[in-house]
Amino acid sequence: MRILNQEIPSAVGQTVTVAGWVHRRRRLAAVSFLVLRDRSGLSQVVVKAPETQAQLDELGEETVVQVTGQVAANPQAPGGAEIVDSVIVPLTEPAQTPPIELWRPTIAAGLPVVLDNAPVALRHPAIRAGWEVAAAALHGFRETIDGFGFTEIQTPKIVGTATESGANVFALDYFGGPAYLAQSPQFYKQTMVGVFERVYEVGPVFRAEPHDTVRHLAEYVSLDAEFGFIQNHRDVLAVLRDVVAGMLAAVGSRAAGALDLLGVKVPEIPTEVPVIHFAEALALAGADPDEPDLSPADERAIGEWALREHGSEFVAVEGYPMVKRPFYTHPQPSDPRWSNSFDLLFRGMELVTGGQRLHRYSDYVAALEARGESPEAPAYGSYLQAFKHGMPPHGGFAIGLERFVARLTGAENVREVTLFPRDLHRLTP
Amino acid sequence: MRILNQEIPSAVGQTVTVAGWVHRRRRLAAVSFLVLRDRSGLSQVVVKAPETQAQLDELGEETVVQVTGQVAANPQAPGGAEIVDSVIVPLTEPAQTPPIELWRPTIAAGLPVVLDNAPVALRHPAIRAGWEVAAAALHGFRETIDGFGFTEIQTPKIVGTATESGANVFALDYFGGPAYLAQSPQFYKQTMVGVFERVYEVGPVFRAEPHDTVRHLAEYVSLDAEFGFIQNHRDVLAVLRDVVAGMLAAVGSRAAGALDLLGVKVPEIPTEVPVIHFAEALALAGADPDEPDLSPADERAIGEWALREHGSEFVAVEGYPMVKRPFYTHPQPSDPRWSNSFDLLFRGMELVTGGQRLHRYSDYVAALEARGESPEAPAYGSYLQAFKHGMPPHGGFAIGLERFVARLTGAENVREVTLFPRDLHRLTP
Repeated sequence: MRILNQEIPSAVGQTVTVAGWVHRRRRLAAVSFLVLRDRSGLSQVVVKAPETQAQLDELGEETVVQVTGQVAANPQAPGGAEIVDSVIVPLTEPAQTPPIELWRPTIAAGLPVVLDNAPVALRHPAIRAGWEVAAAALHGFRETIDGFGFTEIQTPKIVGTATESGANVFALDYFGGPAYLAQSPQFYKQTMVGVFERVYEVGPVFRAEPHDTVRHLAEYVSLDAEFGFIQNHRDVLAVLRDVVAGMLAAVGSRAAGALDLLGVKVPEIPTEVPVIHFAEALALAGADPDEPDLSPADERAIGEWALREHGSEFVAVEGYPMVKRPFYTHPQPSDPRWSNSFDLLFRGMELVTGGQRLHRYSDYVAALEARGESPEAPAYGSYLQAFKHGMPPHGGFAIGLERFVARLTGAENVREVTLFPRDLHRLTP
Repeated sequence: MRILNQEIPSAVGQTVTVAGWVHRRRRLAAVSFLVLRDRSGLSQVVVKAPETQAQLDELGEETVVQVTGQVAANPQAPGGAEIVDSVIVPLTEPAQTPPIELWRPTIAAGLPVVLDNAPVALRHPAIRAGWEVAAAALHGFRETIDGFGFTEIQTPKIVGTATESGANVFALDYFGGPAYLAQSPQFYKQTMVGVFERVYEVGPVFRAEPHDTVRHLAEYVSLDAEFGFIQNHRDVLAVLRDVVAGMLAAVGSRAAGALDLLGVKVPEIPTEVPVIHFAEALALAGADPDEPDLSPADERAIGEWALREHGSEFVAVEGYPMVKRPFYTHPQPSDPRWSNSFDLLFRGMELVTGGQRLHRYSDYVAALEARGESPEAPAYGSYLQAFKHGMPPHGGFAIGLERFVARLTGAENVREVTLFPRDLHRLTP
């Protein structure tokens, strides 16, 4: 019966069997060390028998082995215990030398080499740690939002028309006709508010993003939520705050080892996220009051303001100009130049966009016509059907998983925390 | 403060506010009834004031309203209570008449009409119930497998080469070059066993399925699992059994109302699923011993046998001929004509396929060459890298969500339990 490496320290004096990858071998004069890696971490196996030392010499790093031996206390070993008097049984043929030295704490290879060799590079504890944070965040997202009575949905990724605009959309051959990859589940999640009131979806979204930047991917994981019977976007922000808090808590509890390895502390999100109106944000940043958007420098200034004035690493900017928001955005009732939408900034960078949507059919017709589009267009037919037949005031948000994790872990490039990134230049592995 | 319809019976004597959709209106001589639908179910609102009756006459079915009134006990009302002396406030403009009568318990429209009008048809309690079962099953899947120490992964859906074969794959334009939609996460989930040992993924898979049948979709949700350090496929079957049990338990507890509405009882899966070898299965069904596959009639015969001999609605057939299994399938060690793979049948129909995979690099090279394929081909380069550098004995399975739910609910067509199905003829809504 196999035990995990992390269970070794509590088995001192017993004979145990562990299994995993040969992470590292060190041969000294009289003794060899085998560092074994499994999903729970590392362990140390001490080999003194000459024939086992010779056996180990033949088993290159990454060979999968099973080790049976006696657990002995040793304060110098990981966890304070090691395996001695061991019998090593290979579970596969000897592995070839990995393209990246996985046992070195620091990754010597550059990002392109790491990404080209992802099937093996992801085994490096520090690279793997990024995804451990992502997996924990996914768990926290679902657990929190499920607790709020949201229903999970899974909506199609192949669509008949471009979701929000014709730009940056991937086209495909669908049984001889044209189709597209969904840029977001926006229309579907709104539609499903008519069915379940509160819905969420975790799934891939696709952007034929022609820019090669550290924050854009051609395919990423979107954590979408949408819900009805709200007063305005502030209700959306309140749910988002709780969801982010749940994600952070799950990262702290489920990926503690990964955080240690990465030297990252989970930030605090205040119960009430500070909110600043877009117009005030421009003034605060010293920007032109007619600017329709915030520059990266403006966002940093607002982040600093929130930290200084409210002790918060998070801040929401509400009221973004309607001209910069999609047609389904609900205007600010007191002044329709502004919108009932917001960006949540974390450490001075945009993390999540959310807001209230239009809910009246007549408002959709007017909004589309004002943008020179026809409500009768195939792109809108099924979407508008939901509004024709009664929809409550509603809103929602979308969290980009990879960007969230990159911000949290301080990764400079979103690709560092993506399992197999897709971009302008990268389609494999 | 809004309460849900399901909370009304416990608020007798109080003034409450509810909100939802006008599900049905009935006008009698002295009184009108409003049946209100929200995400928790239906409630009855009694309207006697003539001006409120007149107001209700203007608010067509599916209009979203808020109702404030007094809760009165009434054994005839749903849940034994109803709302009286009510004030109705519309939250949107009056809704247009739905294309399908949502208030009728039985759906009069045929499936094509239902699917064409999915944004509204999904609001019908009996149609919505199918997806409630699906959402509960998803929850049960993740909860169970997470408890076994599996790590969630999210792998790319845009791939550089067809995953398993060139057939039935959707091609797309990827920044001017060719790319494809992933037919399964098979290669990626195996690769990730090298990183996390135990992984799972819930996500869309794409099949350019040219056949128009009641069980095939061009896009469906696949629940994939893969894990290492197994003895053989029986370890995979044991995990699958527990995962299916967890899914069934979650459906029973989280979708109880939906099951009632559909008249469905959750089946029992035995702790040990009966297993029969493919060769015996053929004999049992009276089929030619040289047949490489089971016919639907054979599967029914085996299902009947399992029910008769083992009292089980589930049965696993192991040892499927290698010639009918993908190249990565592990042969049966005692006789390599057969494989260490299985199908799990439910009520005489295939529900899940799983098995042990090859894990030695040299075995992959041999298996590909035996099929006339080059291990150096771009399709296999990154995949085989994982095996070159050490992989444990491993295996896994994939559950098709829509098919699972269709079998469970007795839906004749998998489209009945898919939110927005995609097939040869259907790309919208």
